[in-house]
Amino acid sequence: MNQLEDLLEFVRIDTTSAKGKGEEGAKFIKDYMERHGIEARLIRHQSKNPYVYGEINVKAKRTLLVYNHYDVQPVEPLDRWESDPFTPVMKEGKIVGRGVGDDKGSLMARLQGILEMEKLPSLNLKFIYEGEEEIGSPNIDSFLKDYKDLLKADYVLWEGAGKGSSGAPEIVLGVKGLLYVEISTRTAKDLHSMYAPVAKNPAWKLVEVLSSLKRDGKVAVPGFYDKVKWLTKEEVSFLKGDKKSMEEAISQEVPEDFQRRLVEEPTCNIAGLYSGYTGEGSKTVIPSYAMAKLDFRLVPEQDPDEILNSLKSYLRDVDIRVLGRVRPYRTSINSEVARCLIDSAKEVYGMDPEVLPNSYGTGPMESFARILENNQIADGIGVDYPGSNIHSFNENIFVQDYLKAKEWMRSFVKRLAQL
Amino acid sequence: MNQLEDLLEFVRIDTTSAKGKGEEGAKFIKDYMERHGIEARLIRHQSKNPYVYGEINVKAKRTLLVYNHYDVQPVEPLDRWESDPFTPVMKEGKIVGRGVGDDKGSLMARLQGILEMEKLPSLNLKFIYEGEEEIGSPNIDSFLKDYKDLLKADYVLWEGAGKGSSGAPEIVLGVKGLLYVEISTRTAKDLHSMYAPVAKNPAWKLVEVLSSLKRDGKVAVPGFYDKVKWLTKEEVSFLKGDKKSMEEAISQEVPEDFQRRLVEEPTCNIAGLYSGYTGEGSKTVIPSYAMAKLDFRLVPEQDPDEILNSLKSYLRDVDIRVLGRVRPYRTSINSEVARCLIDSAKEVYGMDPEVLPNSYGTGPMESFARILENNQIADGIGVDYPGSNIHSFNENIFVQDYLKAKEWMRSFVKRLAQL
Repeated sequence: MNQLEDLLEFVRIDTTSAKGKGEEGAKFIKDYMERHGIEARLIRHQSKNPYVYGEINVKAKRTLLVYNHYDVQPVEPLDRWESDPFTPVMKEGKIVGRGVGDDKGSLMARLQGILEMEKLPSLNLKFIYEGEEEIGSPNIDSFLKDYKDLLKADYVLWEGAGKGSSGAPEIVLGVKGLLYVEISTRTAKDLHSMYAPVAKNPAWKLVEVLSSLKRDGKVAVPGFYDKVKWLTKEEVSFLKGDKKSMEEAISQEVPEDFQRRLVEEPTCNIAGLYSGYTGEGSKTVIPSYAMAKLDFRLVPEQDPDEILNSLKSYLRDVDIRVLGRVRPYRTSINSEVARCLIDSAKEVYGMDPEVLPNSYGTGPMESFARILENNQIADGIGVDYPGSNIHSFNENIFVQDYLKAKEWMRSFVKRLAQL
Repeated sequence: MNQLEDLLEFVRIDTTSAKGKGEEGAKFIKDYMERHGIEARLIRHQSKNPYVYGEINVKAKRTLLVYNHYDVQPVEPLDRWESDPFTPVMKEGKIVGRGVGDDKGSLMARLQGILEMEKLPSLNLKFIYEGEEEIGSPNIDSFLKDYKDLLKADYVLWEGAGKGSSGAPEIVLGVKGLLYVEISTRTAKDLHSMYAPVAKNPAWKLVEVLSSLKRDGKVAVPGFYDKVKWLTKEEVSFLKGDKKSMEEAISQEVPEDFQRRLVEEPTCNIAGLYSGYTGEGSKTVIPSYAMAKLDFRLVPEQDPDEILNSLKSYLRDVDIRVLGRVRPYRTSINSEVARCLIDSAKEVYGMDPEVLPNSYGTGPMESFARILENNQIADGIGVDYPGSNIHSFNENIFVQDYLKAKEWMRSFVKRLAQL
């Protein structure tokens, strides 16, 4: 086993699920597991990209299920990458390439962490790798229902929280939910803009509709905040976060209470806009079509279906197409899985980890909790840091963080085995 | 001379000035004129596409300058065309192809109209064909200044008004102006949308800025309407326009006073919008860039420079790039050129023409008036109709209208010669 070469080989495979890619990456990781003595297989469920399942059964009393995803986000805009996204490079102690931070690096670090143990702990291990996380896990619910017995476990380790902006390792006990929609407006045909005094313009209609979604910086969809569980004082006290490094990470100033906002606030984000002529120079046209991609990031206990219904009632005369829907989730900080993660982090990093009641981002954690009837799901043992540029160009991780994650994995499973 | 084959051959040449094309079309029309005994040449001025100049000097007292343009609009969206835009087809009495309506058809009909005359009238003829009209004629002013003597004339015939929605031939005595800008907002880099609670989103900023440009359907840029010369009752009485055929032409309902609005009202049109991820599926990203292309259609006596300054003061924190700037213009209905056009239209079509104080659209007419010191500039003798889809897909004209335009040209020049 070559510590980094394996990861680089994995990153070289384009697994952009939004573009229908992934199969090759699934086969790679299945073969990799088999080559290292783990029973593994592809599960061709209703999803386009197969699930990869692996198992190390040591006949222990307890079982840990490790979840990761092998698909990645689209790489556009390509011209902003300093190197080809699928040709990973080592540079200044870092590895740069699409997916090294989210989520191939964490997947591989955990797997290698286990494979490098001299003696396996008394804990059964199950690995489940998804190929559709980056498009909102549209098939995870039916998959979990159909494979509920196979995936039965006492604990679930989530996809991989890395270092927070405070520099401490992060433990995350939940996820935000998501409602991703494409809204669009149309007329019969493009028109010369000389007709503007009397013709409808879908782009203006879109601007009007988008404007109506925000008021004073807050989301204006009726009832949007009704079910938000605002953080308790105790939960807030566990938050850290370093303002300066967060500002460096996103290249913008952030407010003093940035960490609380990132955890607690639901959002409505414009992820894409398109209408009419966007090429070089000018074209005097009234477009026949205008489109916006919107992601609503939701927090416990907001329900994406309820938000969608509210949105549909609120927005008139536009088409709304749903592209993703994920519920938010939180696990208790007093659970066994949370305690073992906290203690192992202290041991390996020599400092208190930061504990977030939920991540800034999304994953299908609520589906696992609900369908697998498991309320010990937590995240940690990841390779990324705030400057990893995940979902953006020049995605990268530190080699050092990759190696530490392997150590953390070993310490964590030993503690679970001793419970 | 083959009546229609010559036009089809001309249309086959891609002269999309927004994409840097045109040279080949210029050479074609220069060769065509020379082949038919007209002294012609390309003038390589500061423009990318050369001007084509032709002359028939019969040593008459008076001179008519005929203006047309050989460049065309971009053809996108290509998938909406029923046939290839540069492979013109004859269908149901029509010719379909990019540029047949705007402006290659009118250019060719006038030229053939003259060439087919048994005896040339006692009127000197000058032809000037531009290759940058569709990108806002950025070099026309300096060209006219440098070639003022060459282009000296008593009358100017503009690019070609065809049939109005009333079915009557149209005479147009002016043009709207234009201010075309690209406004954009930026941050340092694309971000994962999980940062939305604290990060700036240029797309939201753009929506906010665009919203601020309209209020109650009117343009909200301060002072925008200050210099508008609203139509007099007399001018309004010359307007016709058929509501039903206008609605068919643009596939939308229009208000009762549509014709007045189309002539009289200045507008702010969104011609293009772009930000973030616009491909298939979903990408949860905060874009680092958002852009809108806007065309302001101006009426006499609005000044594009003044409107631009007002816009710059009004919009904060956005980049404004100017892509086009044309002043509006009107000629008197009592001028000789207007009277000859009206009388010849009556003769050829057997009905009163519709007379518009200015067109719905734009052209560099004001530059001709100001620089050539000529206040007898009028439009007519065109081949298009309201369903021509100019600037859109499936651009087309009726063969019958093409042939009639040639007749009108002959009657017009005879009348001018007899003044």
